[in-house]
Amino acid sequence: MRDELRADLLEVGRLLVSMAEAVRTAMIHATGALLTADRAACEMVIARDAEVNELRRQVDEQVYATLARQAPVATDLRLVITGIQIAADLERMGDLAEHVAKTALRRHPAPAVPPELRDVIASMGAVADRMAGKVGLVLTTQNAPLGAELETDDDAMDELERQLFSILLHRDWPHGAEAAIDGALLGRFYERYADHAVNAGRQVVYLVTGETSEPPGAG
Amino acid sequence: MRDELRADLLEVGRLLVSMAEAVRTAMIHATGALLTADRAACEMVIARDAEVNELRRQVDEQVYATLARQAPVATDLRLVITGIQIAADLERMGDLAEHVAKTALRRHPAPAVPPELRDVIASMGAVADRMAGKVGLVLTTQNAPLGAELETDDDAMDELERQLFSILLHRDWPHGAEAAIDGALLGRFYERYADHAVNAGRQVVYLVTGETSEPPGAG
Repeated sequence: MRDELRADLLEVGRLLVSMAEAVRTAMIHATGALLTADRAACEMVIARDAEVNELRRQVDEQVYATLARQAPVATDLRLVITGIQIAADLERMGDLAEHVAKTALRRHPAPAVPPELRDVIASMGAVADRMAGKVGLVLTTQNAPLGAELETDDDAMDELERQLFSILLHRDWPHGAEAAIDGALLGRFYERYADHAVNAGRQVVYLVTGETSEPPGAG
Repeated sequence: MRDELRADLLEVGRLLVSMAEAVRTAMIHATGALLTADRAACEMVIARDAEVNELRRQVDEQVYATLARQAPVATDLRLVITGIQIAADLERMGDLAEHVAKTALRRHPAPAVPPELRDVIASMGAVADRMAGKVGLVLTTQNAPLGAELETDDDAMDELERQLFSILLHRDWPHGAEAAIDGALLGRFYERYADHAVNAGRQVVYLVTGETSEPPGAG
């Protein structure tokens, strides 16, 4: 790969690191706000999603500028375009953090998460945090094996979602339909966040190594 | 635009039409299977999602082949890459139809949709059908105003989702937490299907007209 192209790709990578950090921070704060029914924190997460969207716009522009300047072909071309796809996954992760914050806000000042669900939601938040962190780390360290770990993390998230549903569906669930619906939707937001992290991670590995065991975008 | 590039873009468009038809059919069948608790129909929807994924792969390949053959620049380059983004939205619509079918299958032979929700779910299925149909029509007829209608259809879908939730959250909801959770998740699958149709439609308008009032991918 030519040095100019490599330099442009590094710039795309830097923007993607900022996005990964932003959507990680968003989910940390959204989970905290959810568990403490913290209105100001919810509103901050919602307001700051615009920054993630703006970063995505910058990634897209940087990708198109790179294509225009470097006119890469074959594998290099695919590599550059991958930046657009990673940014799309990261933006969606930001949206999902925003959904968590909005769920908390809708119930405020009541807590959206009853005591029975606190542990499992906190665990889902922790797994989400770890996954977004790894996406960023693969970008900054070119550490591809870290990207592969995301699949295992995603299995852990799926298992937590099953736990969540088994609590919601227990015959003695005392909180009625509304809290059950909130719990199920929250579970889905975390699970989708993890899916997008896996997808982003797979493509990030491709971006930093040029190698893929599976086609980017699969799964 | 050069004739060769136009011909290649038409081929991308043809594949996208096939995808739009496939994900439309998937949601029609998924909704029917859901409302009639039809096990075989559920299984068919789930099995056929692989065809949608294969079509997406073909779109991606055709886009990369076009880029390699035609080396488009500037606006033409953006136009070609749009094909990848439309295919991603359509593939996700197929996944959501599959989720509807899986929800029906999980409750089979019991119906996943209690009588109180049948009308609103049927209406959501009808709006989803109309929207996927319009995405395909914009591709085949270059009818951009039809693409703009998708925003209005999406408002109708959001209103139906609100109706659905008001039924689920009514104090007299007699079906317990499990049916409420299913109803809420189903509502979300239709609502997300509509969101992806709006996104796909916006980019399809750009693909067929080269014009956009909003940046593709926004919203």
